[in-house]
Amino acid sequence: MTGNACDVGRYLIESRLFIDRALDHYLKKDHNTSVLHQAVCYSVLDGGKRFRPILTLAVGELFGAKRRVLLPFACAIELIHCYSLIHDDLPALDNDDLRRGKPSCHKRFGEAIALLAGDALLTEAFFIMSDPRVARLLDAPLISKLIREISDAASIRGMIGGQSTELELVKHKVTPAILEGLDLLKTGALIKTAVRVGAMIGGATRKDLDRVTRYAQALGLAFQITDDILDADEVSSDNSNHKGIANYVSIAGPERASERVKGLLTACLREMQPYGRAAEPLREIARYVAQRKH
Amino acid sequence: MTGNACDVGRYLIESRLFIDRALDHYLKKDHNTSVLHQAVCYSVLDGGKRFRPILTLAVGELFGAKRRVLLPFACAIELIHCYSLIHDDLPALDNDDLRRGKPSCHKRFGEAIALLAGDALLTEAFFIMSDPRVARLLDAPLISKLIREISDAASIRGMIGGQSTELELVKHKVTPAILEGLDLLKTGALIKTAVRVGAMIGGATRKDLDRVTRYAQALGLAFQITDDILDADEVSSDNSNHKGIANYVSIAGPERASERVKGLLTACLREMQPYGRAAEPLREIARYVAQRKH
Repeated sequence: MTGNACDVGRYLIESRLFIDRALDHYLKKDHNTSVLHQAVCYSVLDGGKRFRPILTLAVGELFGAKRRVLLPFACAIELIHCYSLIHDDLPALDNDDLRRGKPSCHKRFGEAIALLAGDALLTEAFFIMSDPRVARLLDAPLISKLIREISDAASIRGMIGGQSTELELVKHKVTPAILEGLDLLKTGALIKTAVRVGAMIGGATRKDLDRVTRYAQALGLAFQITDDILDADEVSSDNSNHKGIANYVSIAGPERASERVKGLLTACLREMQPYGRAAEPLREIARYVAQRKH
Repeated sequence: MTGNACDVGRYLIESRLFIDRALDHYLKKDHNTSVLHQAVCYSVLDGGKRFRPILTLAVGELFGAKRRVLLPFACAIELIHCYSLIHDDLPALDNDDLRRGKPSCHKRFGEAIALLAGDALLTEAFFIMSDPRVARLLDAPLISKLIREISDAASIRGMIGGQSTELELVKHKVTPAILEGLDLLKTGALIKTAVRVGAMIGGATRKDLDRVTRYAQALGLAFQITDDILDADEVSSDNSNHKGIANYVSIAGPERASERVKGLLTACLREMQPYGRAAEPLREIARYVAQRKH
């Protein structure tokens, strides 16, 4: 792959289509016709950006891993992301009526089915990773290690821990540093694991794994802060529970938020420096995150 | 182990304590002090019967497996069971205020934390199974196979599929055969996997695995039907959503339900016949399920 901007754009679009096809295959292979299955497909096969699984592919390929080996883990991470969105949108948490421009899962299918659809997706992530066909492509001890890595990221020590801490934070005075610690869990843990899994499958050295982990942590923070900036720009006329919750813009102001994102982008680019043009997709992803408008 | 009734009773009590200690260790080792962690511990470390993990130990030991090898998988299945109870109790599903004689998780901690506590427990099950210490005790390909088996049982093809089908069934005419098909998923899938995992770790032959699978299916059905019988005996003065939902007693009547349980107990005992006195704990579990009063 060359570092040509046009080639990188094509690489990212093509990666996304590749993941979309794989998700479609994983979810539809059972020919299930239940309402629950409709809700699962509705919430996954809807043109998401596939940010996390693209990261897994791009990092994995940087270290020489084959796509078909990366794919089950990339898709599992995307399913975990989708489950977290469904549960987050429920009235008990964010109470969001819309997701990606259409009714959220519970608005479309009711709360009971949405709750179960989230549960089903989280479970399916582990089903996909333990597929015997995966065991023919990768060393079995590595599969266990990857499942450990991903389950830890999604756990009470990672994503879920961040979500519950956010609920507790509402009542207290929050500093940008506290908020960053929270964001590193809530949004950052799954982004970090997406990157690390790619590197682990590619057989990266400890030094390289540490380097891409630092890239991922800066990227995850930048992602959450740009999210906060975009949220602040929106006219808040919905009935969601977002209002009381502290975010980077409400705490540090829009200017400091933008400065922080720029600094994080610089950190991302610095970590990719040793990899030359082969890391251009990862640079492009970082630029996209820092400059995104939606 | 002998078949003496007193010894069997001691074996079952001792197994339960062994599992309680392990669950306590798994959940408390992080020294987490968050509300979410309190909710997780509240919902797991509360004197549950540990029916499923005891099955895993008893079947595993029947085939010569060591307890410390069985334990992570037995505990993972119990965590999945506990997560399903927390989510089932939520207002969106059963809307149960009480669980095991105390306020259900959402009544005690609120719906948001209960939702996340369920998510955390399901995730933790896979974290425990992929522990590198487990990889030192068992062949790595078998670990992947066990994770596949358990995630399939908990999935849209198993437990979650049964729960969502039950939501759809309310509106239609249900026969005992349809209900049994549903129960084999909703309650049966996790009980079946608890038994199969024990046999797989013990290195059971295909024939033995099929035999204990039949035992588990009869046991799972008997468990659900006795649940329905006990539910029907209770004066229903709560505000839960159980009422509209079909169960074996409301469809087939209490006598036919009792007869069916007797037949299922006979099937369980028949499958255990080749194993002589070594299978006495599994016979005792079947008798307990068929005759339980709570």
